[in-house]
Amino acid sequence: MIKRGQFITFEGTEGVGKSTQLANAAATLEDLGVDVVVTREPGGTPMAEAIRDLLLAPRDEPVNDLTELLLMFAARAQHLHTHILPALERGQWVLCDRFTDATFAYQGGGRGVPSERIALLETLVQGEVRPDHIILLDAPVETGMKRARQRGELDRFEQEAISFFQRIRNTYLARAKAAPSRYSVVDAARPLDQVSASVKALVCKFYSDLL
Amino acid sequence: MIKRGQFITFEGTEGVGKSTQLANAAATLEDLGVDVVVTREPGGTPMAEAIRDLLLAPRDEPVNDLTELLLMFAARAQHLHTHILPALERGQWVLCDRFTDATFAYQGGGRGVPSERIALLETLVQGEVRPDHIILLDAPVETGMKRARQRGELDRFEQEAISFFQRIRNTYLARAKAAPSRYSVVDAARPLDQVSASVKALVCKFYSDLL
Repeated sequence: MIKRGQFITFEGTEGVGKSTQLANAAATLEDLGVDVVVTREPGGTPMAEAIRDLLLAPRDEPVNDLTELLLMFAARAQHLHTHILPALERGQWVLCDRFTDATFAYQGGGRGVPSERIALLETLVQGEVRPDHIILLDAPVETGMKRARQRGELDRFEQEAISFFQRIRNTYLARAKAAPSRYSVVDAARPLDQVSASVKALVCKFYSDLL
Repeated sequence: MIKRGQFITFEGTEGVGKSTQLANAAATLEDLGVDVVVTREPGGTPMAEAIRDLLLAPRDEPVNDLTELLLMFAARAQHLHTHILPALERGQWVLCDRFTDATFAYQGGGRGVPSERIALLETLVQGEVRPDHIILLDAPVETGMKRARQRGELDRFEQEAISFFQRIRNTYLARAKAAPSRYSVVDAARPLDQVSASVKALVCKFYSDLL
């Protein structure tokens, strides 16, 4: 019988180094012989990436908060059911850049959508499925925004005010505090080699805990 | 004080003549001096039309039923809150080609999504808002499909089997039977002038009932 893979998500505000640490975690696990799938939200399949494009494109028409929330979960339903769950069933480990915590943080904390509405859609789309581990890369908002701006043109979310990202960071930290067994908070304001060492240590622990 | 406009939706399977009868109803109401807005679902705003394009495009990737359902309601949230409700508040009458009954019929009856799931999203997106009148254009599925095929290339829904549309028709008829005060079932298999006369008579009645 194939042992189900682990589902690990990477969360944090703009510019905290999610992509770098996702690659670092993937390389670490591959060195241990783990079959790894790296993916991202919103997106991860052609249909879900098309929804991502709709969500991120700056536009003149103000986007209704509920529309944004439902598009996020539409992309998630496609990604989870056609890509993530089949990979986990095959025994692969799935490392995902953002997942439902980002919806609670961005649409909930950021936009002010009541968290019960988000929880309702979480249950509708995911049933009982939750990430096995959530790595929260945490840094002061200003630090991350500086890095995000250096990447070039900002998308519809990156164009928001600093206070928007402050509420997002606070929501992430509150969720981590409320369920410490599932969240690992990594101080991402430190020099890159130290952040990378912390993430390496974490995924090694996730692996060895299963032996 | 401006009197809130009436919200009238046109429902039915492919090729029953919804567009023709929508134009007929709009002309009839305009003759009576009513300020009319004609719109359609999924769509009705640039953002919602972009979601419509995503939904209707034939694609290799199988679309998850929940993804389709959430995209429908994402488009609806945008359309309802930024277009339909403001028009009704201004006193305009809104005539809409398909609305939530189509979701119960297509995603519920057609795809087999449990109706409680659809009702849950209906409440999330619409609160207490429901159409004031629903005109159901009813015809045997084969009659409508013949007309739809003559229009040219078929979209992702029109490519489904006859049994899919049979389930949709049955769901529409069952919903109309369960709430006869809100639904007007029009026999759309008759010659066009008779169908048009029935629709004209209906909207005149909706108008005069408010005097």
